[in-house]
Amino acid sequence: MRRVAIVGIGHTKFGVRNASLRELAFEAAREALEDAKLTIDDLDSLIVGIVSAEFAKMVSPGAQIAEYLGINPKGSMRVEAACATGSAAIRAGYMTIASGLSDLVLVVGCEKMRELSTQEGLEIMSKAADTKWEYSFCCTFAGYYAMLANAHMKRYGTTEEQLAMVGVKNHSNALNNPYAHLHKKINIDDVLNSKMVAYPLKLYDSCPLSDGAAAVVLASDELANKFEEPIWISGLGVATDTASMMTRESYTEIRGATLAAREAYKYAKVDPSDIDLAEVHDAFTIGEILAYEDLGFCKKGKGGELVEEGETEIGGKIPVNTDGGLKAKGHPLGATGVSQAVEIVTQLRGEAGKRQVEGAEIGLSHNVGGNGQYIFVTIYKR
Amino acid sequence: MRRVAIVGIGHTKFGVRNASLRELAFEAAREALEDAKLTIDDLDSLIVGIVSAEFAKMVSPGAQIAEYLGINPKGSMRVEAACATGSAAIRAGYMTIASGLSDLVLVVGCEKMRELSTQEGLEIMSKAADTKWEYSFCCTFAGYYAMLANAHMKRYGTTEEQLAMVGVKNHSNALNNPYAHLHKKINIDDVLNSKMVAYPLKLYDSCPLSDGAAAVVLASDELANKFEEPIWISGLGVATDTASMMTRESYTEIRGATLAAREAYKYAKVDPSDIDLAEVHDAFTIGEILAYEDLGFCKKGKGGELVEEGETEIGGKIPVNTDGGLKAKGHPLGATGVSQAVEIVTQLRGEAGKRQVEGAEIGLSHNVGGNGQYIFVTIYKR
Repeated sequence: MRRVAIVGIGHTKFGVRNASLRELAFEAAREALEDAKLTIDDLDSLIVGIVSAEFAKMVSPGAQIAEYLGINPKGSMRVEAACATGSAAIRAGYMTIASGLSDLVLVVGCEKMRELSTQEGLEIMSKAADTKWEYSFCCTFAGYYAMLANAHMKRYGTTEEQLAMVGVKNHSNALNNPYAHLHKKINIDDVLNSKMVAYPLKLYDSCPLSDGAAAVVLASDELANKFEEPIWISGLGVATDTASMMTRESYTEIRGATLAAREAYKYAKVDPSDIDLAEVHDAFTIGEILAYEDLGFCKKGKGGELVEEGETEIGGKIPVNTDGGLKAKGHPLGATGVSQAVEIVTQLRGEAGKRQVEGAEIGLSHNVGGNGQYIFVTIYKR
Repeated sequence: MRRVAIVGIGHTKFGVRNASLRELAFEAAREALEDAKLTIDDLDSLIVGIVSAEFAKMVSPGAQIAEYLGINPKGSMRVEAACATGSAAIRAGYMTIASGLSDLVLVVGCEKMRELSTQEGLEIMSKAADTKWEYSFCCTFAGYYAMLANAHMKRYGTTEEQLAMVGVKNHSNALNNPYAHLHKKINIDDVLNSKMVAYPLKLYDSCPLSDGAAAVVLASDELANKFEEPIWISGLGVATDTASMMTRESYTEIRGATLAAREAYKYAKVDPSDIDLAEVHDAFTIGEILAYEDLGFCKKGKGGELVEEGETEIGGKIPVNTDGGLKAKGHPLGATGVSQAVEIVTQLRGEAGKRQVEGAEIGLSHNVGGNGQYIFVTIYKR
């Protein structure tokens, strides 16, 4: 099988953007092409990751993006895996090259979430879960993650303060990321005193609704070595779980994350202790604590202690969400997995400035779709 | 690169179905697994093709289908390429295996279009085109294809009668396909006298709105040879064009179809004359005439004559849409490309009964997304 590397990265500012979906995609794609010193004509094909066309009042948004990027008549397709769509898009890009169908592929993840009202946006997102028995009874993602948080607190003694520490750390990291949606230093009391969303999760335990896009250029090994600093996709893992929460066996782990991580570690021939930094899916703060455990960065039930001990801060044993994570950087659904890759490449290149993890050689991304129905774990190496 | 074959096929009855999206997907998937003599546990991963989650009032439908099929915790993703989604899903399945990530993949294409009213359905479909400058001015797909038909009639003298002949042929073929939505013999006068939709296209020049699903099991070459009669995916071609019609250079061809066909022929090392049967995208009858030309089955401008001479009937030089095509079999958007593959496999196995093309060895599918913004051409061999 051919190896595949990232040879160009691009990222828009995340936030409430006065730009359309196609303009966001273009902004990230242009930056990725400039970074790779390529033009659109050099590419063989395009993969677009978008969760809900409904957000942008479209049905088949990939074609409009392809036109706006000027990539016609080259091939393209859209992929979707709920909030893990960006990672699914990278996987599809990887497959396009590894299967021999293309040599240079542009992967763009994007979402335009702020054209609609918050109420409309939350309504659309709730339909990304089980629509027959859960959405129809008014379940929301904050509610699902609150169930996981309550179960974890009861079983392992995880505290609201520990959840808050995830938010505080990620807000602090975001201050050094110009692309982040929220540039606001917060402390534990700010989180604990913020508006309750779904007990025990409060406003500052939750990611914002953001517009944004991120892009990467992928190259086959024959080509990648001609670029200055290719970053290799060296491990891929994917798993799914039921869309419905009611059928899950455990509420104290994202089962698929454990499985996807195992697959990715095996593929990359590394252990959790080899990972220098990780980007994990902290749409809600409990998500990051579960990720620590599911990825093997600490023992089961010890995630709360890991953040409390500062081990996931920059300078700690395993820095997590150095770019601010979904919590503070923002979570434009389809963009997130690609954005995680952009941060890891930035770190492995040593270009992360004030948030740089010294000597980083191996990075991992953990991207969860919905409440755990899709999980993609991807490992990147210099 | 590893070769990939189809080793199992499944298909629901297309039509107005009293079944949910997940039930349709299950029905086709179960048949494909039974055909391959496999169980869901034998599979490595799933690809789901659905155009619009909105039809089924969902946002991330693939996860609910994965759960209903019982494939968790194996990996999955959804792909979308407008009306060519089914073929994009097969391409993604091919890539999953050829890239070495899986050995056995289930590909399910499906769409639930009749839960909403016709008006709502047409509204959703119109948003699969350019939404900024065309949908917003009330363009519809019938209107787009009518423009192509008018241009072709003016430039090449193609007649309304020749368009009607496509419908008559495909309705006739559908009589021998138990899965077809429409089982109704029609003649040229029936077409010419049917309600005008968008001049020159009438009701019987247009495909119906259908519910339905189709599924295939794909296997790597190491595994495929253990099955009774693997049918090999031996050529793949993909191209795109602008989502907007206003920017197209020509209205008398689907440019991307010419390009995708060239790529697929080259990949499979065959010429148009080697193709024993073709499934082409006749959402409107003009689409089939354009396909004859774009695929090289006749010279440019001679598509009308080809159908008039009976060369695309079963027994003709190049039988087209032996299963009734989108026109009479129906066009549940995400299912169509997979359904085309199912018909070709059925024919190449010699199991097509009264609609069998004698001695068929090589089949081709041509699947157009939107008004030509996506085109996938796939070649299958015994």
